[in-house]
Amino acid sequence: MTKKLVTFGETLLRLTPPGYERFLQSPHFTAVFGGAEANVAVAFSAFGMDAAYVTVLPDNNPIADAAVGELRRFGVDTGRIVRGRGRLGTYYLETAANHRPGRVVYDREYSAMALAKPGDISWDTTLDGAAWFHITGITPAISASAADLAIEAMSSARTKGVIVSLDLNYCRNLWNWGKSSQGVLNEMMRVTDILIANEEHLRMILGLSQRGDVQELTNYVLNGFDNIQGTAVSLRGSLNGHHYWSACLNDRKQFLTGRQFDITHAIDRIGAGDAFVAGLIYGWMNFAERQKTLDFAIAASCIKHSIPGDFCRATAEEVLAMMDSRDTGRIHR
Amino acid sequence: MTKKLVTFGETLLRLTPPGYERFLQSPHFTAVFGGAEANVAVAFSAFGMDAAYVTVLPDNNPIADAAVGELRRFGVDTGRIVRGRGRLGTYYLETAANHRPGRVVYDREYSAMALAKPGDISWDTTLDGAAWFHITGITPAISASAADLAIEAMSSARTKGVIVSLDLNYCRNLWNWGKSSQGVLNEMMRVTDILIANEEHLRMILGLSQRGDVQELTNYVLNGFDNIQGTAVSLRGSLNGHHYWSACLNDRKQFLTGRQFDITHAIDRIGAGDAFVAGLIYGWMNFAERQKTLDFAIAASCIKHSIPGDFCRATAEEVLAMMDSRDTGRIHR
Amino acid sequence: MTKKLVTFGETLLRLTPPGYERFLQSPHFTAVFGGAEANVAVAFSAFGMDAAYVTVLPDNNPIADAAVGELRRFGVDTGRIVRGRGRLGTYYLETAANHRPGRVVYDREYSAMALAKPGDISWDTTLDGAAWFHITGITPAISASAADLAIEAMSSARTKGVIVSLDLNYCRNLWNWGKSSQGVLNEMMRVTDILIANEEHLRMILGLSQRGDVQELTNYVLNGFDNIQGTAVSLRGSLNGHHYWSACLNDRKQFLTGRQFDITHAIDRIGAGDAFVAGLIYGWMNFAERQKTLDFAIAASCIKHSIPGDFCRATAEEVLAMMDSRDTGRIHR
Amino acid sequence: MTKKLVTFGETLLRLTPPGYERFLQSPHFTAVFGGAEANVAVAFSAFGMDAAYVTVLPDNNPIADAAVGELRRFGVDTGRIVRGRGRLGTYYLETAANHRPGRVVYDREYSAMALAKPGDISWDTTLDGAAWFHITGITPAISASAADLAIEAMSSARTKGVIVSLDLNYCRNLWNWGKSSQGVLNEMMRVTDILIANEEHLRMILGLSQRGDVQELTNYVLNGFDNIQGTAVSLRGSLNGHHYWSACLNDRKQFLTGRQFDITHAIDRIGAGDAFVAGLIYGWMNFAERQKTLDFAIAASCIKHSIPGDFCRATAEEVLAMMDSRDTGRIHR
Amino acid sequence: MTKKLVTFGETLLRLTPPGYERFLQSPHFTAVFGGAEANVAVAFSAFGMDAAYVTVLPDNNPIADAAVGELRRFGVDTGRIVRGRGRLGTYYLETAANHRPGRVVYDREYSAMALAKPGDISWDTTLDGAAWFHITGITPAISASAADLAIEAMSSARTKGVIVSLDLNYCRNLWNWGKSSQGVLNEMMRVTDILIANEEHLRMILGLSQRGDVQELTNYVLNGFDNIQGTAVSLRGSLNGHHYWSACLNDRKQFLTGRQFDITHAIDRIGAGDAFVAGLIYGWMNFAERQKTLDFAIAASCIKHSIPGDFCRATAEEVLAMMDSRDTGRIHR
Amino acid sequence: MTKKLVTFGETLLRLTPPGYERFLQSPHFTAVFGGAEANVAVAFSAFGMDAAYVTVLPDNNPIADAAVGELRRFGVDTGRIVRGRGRLGTYYLETAANHRPGRVVYDREYSAMALAKPGDISWDTTLDGAAWFHITGITPAISASAADLAIEAMSSARTKGVIVSLDLNYCRNLWNWGKSSQGVLNEMMRVTDILIANEEHLRMILGLSQRGDVQELTNYVLNGFDNIQGTAVSLRGSLNGHHYWSACLNDRKQFLTGRQFDITHAIDRIGAGDAFVAGLIYGWMNFAERQKTLDFAIAASCIKHSIPGDFCRATAEEVLAMMDSRDTGRIHR
Repeated sequence: MTKKLVTFGETLLRLTPPGYERFLQSPHFTAVFGGAEANVAVAFSAFGMDAAYVTVLPDNNPIADAAVGELRRFGVDTGRIVRGRGRLGTYYLETAANHRPGRVVYDREYSAMALAKPGDISWDTTLDGAAWFHITGITPAISASAADLAIEAMSSARTKGVIVSLDLNYCRNLWNWGKSSQGVLNEMMRVTDILIANEEHLRMILGLSQRGDVQELTNYVLNGFDNIQGTAVSLRGSLNGHHYWSACLNDRKQFLTGRQFDITHAIDRIGAGDAFVAGLIYGWMNFAERQKTLDFAIAASCIKHSIPGDFCRATAEEVLAMMDSRDTGRIHR
Repeated sequence: MTKKLVTFGETLLRLTPPGYERFLQSPHFTAVFGGAEANVAVAFSAFGMDAAYVTVLPDNNPIADAAVGELRRFGVDTGRIVRGRGRLGTYYLETAANHRPGRVVYDREYSAMALAKPGDISWDTTLDGAAWFHITGITPAISASAADLAIEAMSSARTKGVIVSLDLNYCRNLWNWGKSSQGVLNEMMRVTDILIANEEHLRMILGLSQRGDVQELTNYVLNGFDNIQGTAVSLRGSLNGHHYWSACLNDRKQFLTGRQFDITHAIDRIGAGDAFVAGLIYGWMNFAERQKTLDFAIAASCIKHSIPGDFCRATAEEVLAMMDSRDTGRIHR
Repeated sequence: MTKKLVTFGETLLRLTPPGYERFLQSPHFTAVFGGAEANVAVAFSAFGMDAAYVTVLPDNNPIADAAVGELRRFGVDTGRIVRGRGRLGTYYLETAANHRPGRVVYDREYSAMALAKPGDISWDTTLDGAAWFHITGITPAISASAADLAIEAMSSARTKGVIVSLDLNYCRNLWNWGKSSQGVLNEMMRVTDILIANEEHLRMILGLSQRGDVQELTNYVLNGFDNIQGTAVSLRGSLNGHHYWSACLNDRKQFLTGRQFDITHAIDRIGAGDAFVAGLIYGWMNFAERQKTLDFAIAASCIKHSIPGDFCRATAEEVLAMMDSRDTGRIHR
Repeated sequence: MTKKLVTFGETLLRLTPPGYERFLQSPHFTAVFGGAEANVAVAFSAFGMDAAYVTVLPDNNPIADAAVGELRRFGVDTGRIVRGRGRLGTYYLETAANHRPGRVVYDREYSAMALAKPGDISWDTTLDGAAWFHITGITPAISASAADLAIEAMSSARTKGVIVSLDLNYCRNLWNWGKSSQGVLNEMMRVTDILIANEEHLRMILGLSQRGDVQELTNYVLNGFDNIQGTAVSLRGSLNGHHYWSACLNDRKQFLTGRQFDITHAIDRIGAGDAFVAGLIYGWMNFAERQKTLDFAIAASCIKHSIPGDFCRATAEEVLAMMDSRDTGRIHR
Repeated sequence: MTKKLVTFGETLLRLTPPGYERFLQSPHFTAVFGGAEANVAVAFSAFGMDAAYVTVLPDNNPIADAAVGELRRFGVDTGRIVRGRGRLGTYYLETAANHRPGRVVYDREYSAMALAKPGDISWDTTLDGAAWFHITGITPAISASAADLAIEAMSSARTKGVIVSLDLNYCRNLWNWGKSSQGVLNEMMRVTDILIANEEHLRMILGLSQRGDVQELTNYVLNGFDNIQGTAVSLRGSLNGHHYWSACLNDRKQFLTGRQFDITHAIDRIGAGDAFVAGLIYGWMNFAERQKTLDFAIAASCIKHSIPGDFCRATAEEVLAMMDSRDTGRIHR
Repeated sequence: MTKKLVTFGETLLRLTPPGYERFLQSPHFTAVFGGAEANVAVAFSAFGMDAAYVTVLPDNNPIADAAVGELRRFGVDTGRIVRGRGRLGTYYLETAANHRPGRVVYDREYSAMALAKPGDISWDTTLDGAAWFHITGITPAISASAADLAIEAMSSARTKGVIVSLDLNYCRNLWNWGKSSQGVLNEMMRVTDILIANEEHLRMILGLSQRGDVQELTNYVLNGFDNIQGTAVSLRGSLNGHHYWSACLNDRKQFLTGRQFDITHAIDRIGAGDAFVAGLIYGWMNFAERQKTLDFAIAASCIKHSIPGDFCRATAEEVLAMMDSRDTGRIHR
């Protein structure tokens, strides 16, 4: 466990009604913690790797303490988390069913993370020992100061020789603090080594039309951003509650495509993209072959669809087994 | 909220085992309230419209009080509900799974509604301010006096110039008090403005064979019943637990068909027909186009399949979004 | 209820996390009892037949007492159960979801059944009044003494003129006490009247390659084992969490195949094979036609996929209805 | 298990909200089965004795089937239960908390038991092998025909030389079918061997004022009813949700009093009187000393206060341990 | 239902772990709505009276919609609720157990109510038809603008001739927006007709030491504030998780004390003070005798301790029964 | 966090029925992890201190993995845990209610810890950085090899200059592997610095009668064992489900007694003794005064009685607050 991954972003408490109920249909919520970067750290740690998660949480708050404990449960290093003023970001989620889409209600304004600003975190200490730093496009969307802090973090990492990955993860409802997402995210892409995105978001941020195939799209990215070593694009289709999930990867040497999984009974798709990222970093660190790296990332994402909560609770062995196996109906006993 | 809908029928307590369990597999029941006409009132109210629900409930009974409270929660006007002697109608429901059909066990004999008789309800007051009155073929099936009361209600409504809709909703197990369902339901159809039915029930009540297509069937209705302005027929197919749901509408001007929804993971199909009715009334009142009316009704019914319990807990905005959207896999955030 | 079935095997406590959660994702387990031969006895009893179940359970143990009570609930005769030293066999099960396979973690070493040995059970008394005796290939896998006891039981039954059925049910993880499964199971097949197996296990135990079709396979069995009157082979395919389930039967007079069920939403497939066995014995005892016997067994197995827990909680009427019905979407009311 | 007890009465489904909630505060009920005479049979069977329970249940009703299965779980012989037309008696119970009393809402009109009448049950067969027959004052309260049936049962039992016990159990809300409870219950007392009652009910049925102590009251009973061999009177006080529970016994030879238990945290007091009866019958059958009989009955009743549901799920060993032990805080490990 | 009560304050979503668990011990919360003034409106409505509740809730927020629905369920008039920007106030509550105190974690900053300011609510319309207006000392604690709005509301009510009651309800953790609680609350007391407080808070706000008994304290209030017609002071003691609850009332004519309830098993004490207020208003409106008014208020508060959630779900009949009854151990059947 | 505590013992999975139910009354268990030494490590860590826990767990076992994760959640260092062959120790617990005692059913034979033997753990590495080592009398009770391993651990610790504490914790049902508990535990006391015990166990192990008071008992220990620096004796009384809990401490300088807590509603008393130990170690390390040390330990134990599960989930601040506060009825907000 020497190749340490450090991820940085907002922690969220997620509250979900039981089963397929609508909000407050019964007076109960299931509570899990999440947040894109926390999800990556947990998934990576569950693969048996070394991950630290950095965030800002409210102090004197036992719900935030529980978030830290939950991350620790997965072996994530939480010693670099900063406690400060502000709230704990929260969101409410109704589970999708059939043709009815899932519904997210955010309650994350004035969070400790939104109030954080450059200088609040000592990046030199925080990135100590890190081989890889991961962040998403959600963090700059939270607030102007969080956007500044995000870019500060990425630049610090690159200065220290740490690989920086960015998941473009565009969240329309959050970008309301002033600057345009296009400008900020393009700025972040300038300090990125590995870029992950879904096709729709990537075209939007680059200001591209739907013309051209995905390979051309990745070439466009790699041509436009010299700093980017490789870019992976996730490909999701969905119909009547079924999901078709795959991805491709361009590492400047080759353009690779992976298996498409037909996911007919998604249990929880939140965090599936983050599991993809964790799988990609795992593969990049551990496998000689890029195809295997891509396949591992896709399989990790596929398995996440079957696990309730934001976190991908799967071992590397389970992901490898899913890569290889075509017949999944057997019970393992 | 000026176009008030008044619905009238029996209220039922429904008791369901957890998940896909069989009765008493664990010692727990989930309890919801329902009843076809209550379902229509709730769905209509959830669309942001003005609905009142009329029924007869046992007095001095806190379970019946809870039923009233639950209807009130959705904004349904419960001020016209009558309390009297008798029981609260109850039914037990096992959720269908795969090839195993759902199972209903009724325990609704001697209910306050079954004991109710003409004269128990002052229709003049009860229909005050109403623009539309809705009833189903379940009410006359309960008892001879309830059948008389149902026809009294429909006639009173028409006398007051209120539009009367009837959902033919044939329930074989209930018709055991003497008269034939055919006779009574044909009598009700004579005091109906808008008729809703599924194809199978409609043919049975009209004594028609399976010959002829659905358009011919609606023409047959409109030819035979001068009083009926329009008739909508729901079309359900099912295979291996999958449902195919659509409907058609004949308003004497045109015969319209709507989109067919492929519902592969029905969460709860009880109340789907009632959501269709509520959607049809909503559209009839609010949309200039009959096609939009039909499409709204079908989409409302489709969304109901995704919601646990008898009630359709969806806003008009959500139904409109489902009408338009083809890709429903995205989470709304 | 004169044709009594006696089954013999290990009782297991099964602990499952809620819904599709992974182990200990929340601090709760659902607990059910099972074990292949107990499952057969319960399913057979639920069909309205007369079944007794024989096992060895730890004494002075209220969890084992609860197992006995649970079997009694279904009308299974538990008066022949032996209590002794040792543990109650236990297993943990994660429910499969999408591409993620179910996971079984056994904790059944040193169980009372594993410690049992020839002479511990008086077969003469225990088989009193029995018309049929059923056992599976799991029992001999538990321990050397259990294997000896299993063969003692089968031989005793045949001596008394009781029909003996064997479900080959090969469990790789259990065979670790010394002898090879091939040798022991072949020895058991020599004292078997009716053999049930899935194709894969059967080929493995017989040392056959995948060459030849299923009919040839059943002929091979019947040619090799004079004592076997008939053999049924279950055929399961699975893809993306969907199951295709069917079976065939060779009774030396004819080779019969049955309907294939497409099971797209399996709730719980554990015990489906045992429901098949119970259905086969039910049909063999009650139907003149072997085709109806096979069809009943397949339908029983199909319905089990829809019922949570190890036990098939379905009446003979429900199985017959499933055999006949093609449209299962209707709710029975 | 040779001294068989047969009890006869109405089976009830009980529906209770979770914890200390009021009805429908959340949409869930816990479901248990009960009924005074069923409770006695279950408690007696749990003591390791031989009990049969007789009742009339609706046929073709899976909820009633589940009641039978639940009784069987405890080893109660259910083979003498009659199935007929009518409903399954049901009641709703809110758990008492602090000063707030528990609340019962009955829904037991038109039950199969209320519709049963003399001649429906073959008492000769039903009482075959019985040493003791038990009934309560609830059964005659249900309906005129049930009252006739109750007296028919008691007379038949006495004719066959079976000991008859009657728990006076007066239920004011039920006596509304015509005759006065005083008349009917006095008539039943004339065919009773062992009478159990609480002081308040006993005085009321006998038309006695509160004057005189309990010993005098038992003497009054034994003087007035030559047929009664012994009478036990339970003594309950309660304050602020605490219960003080004891009882006395007069067997014509001596007047005995027992230990008073101070029950500060009653979990469920329904069925505590029935556990007392079961304990008394157990003691009468098994102990030479009447004091031990009384003490066993009181301890059984005390332990019932700690067990959720109507049924007393305790072994004879546990009751004996409670009789002897004064310090109950230790965990048994 | 002509004497309408209008209450005004912040609505809160309360999230509580199951049973006596600490936060996030399992990943579940029970969700109820509350807030002191909402509690008063619900309790008053449950008594069968006419109540309206005024608050400011975030718009486009289905959790806030559910709060409105929940109030409506109890018959509270929610038509005067204002929707605006801001969050829904939330709090987390751990249930007290034994010596361990309950713990509240507030997450109510930036709530729609905190952002509300004078002018946002048309008091003239809002108080239309009101006979009584109730507010607590919590509202001014939320923010400077909410404090201004609170005083605006009280003054408007008095101008319209509506009786104004104030529950002093001091919440130390909330007063952090600038002004001192003493100043603001004294200002509110100047526009109050009926003052309710607990002894400790009252002394603190008045700047009084612990010297003097409660009667002197009430005299001090009535002497200092000419506008106050009467003041009730609740008296709570607690020891080892037991509560002793009583209250006194000084209406300038007499000083009355009430029964002390010994509450040994408090289920939920939140909202007990609000039930006291609702009971006091109920009595003031309905009873000629002030002693009965006080007794009703105390009994209402006592019964609230037995009901989970913020709301007092009890009828006036139940409160009257508790006033009279000393023996509460009986189940009502 | 420099004064590291290392504890060593068996990890147990505990399975408890819901609420006050008896085993398998409903088909659910609540699952928590525990074990006396794990409980001490978790409580100590929750106080904000540095704890490591050493045990032997089965490898390739996701339930054991979950145990490790759960300990990590509390910040316990799990890096020194050894994985090997054998089972995960398990026990079933029924919660005590009223006069009914709690019931423990062990299923811990052949656990990985029972199979562990001297040499399996490298004590030199394992105790690296430790200031204190804690063990209980349960570990040697498990098996002969575990007893040898326990003494090896204690001796190694003393050799390294680590303080060794022993909780005598006598468990009668476990001592069945050959040697007498008296001999082994006396041997362990010879390598102990701080001894904790309850009075009853201590007298039994020392072979003392009940004569003499507790102070004499502690003197007897300190006179007989030169190596023991101090001994704390916990004092529990219980009556009708109420607990009286206190303790005393003799550190050779003085004999101290502490406050007695009257615990009338114990939620979960398992782990209360372990919380006492953790509190004692915390105080010994952090407080100059021994009286404060004893008081902290007693308060920690008292607070544990209010927390479900084996673990004491309380901060040092909460324990300090409980030490000081006499009135605990207030909710902290």
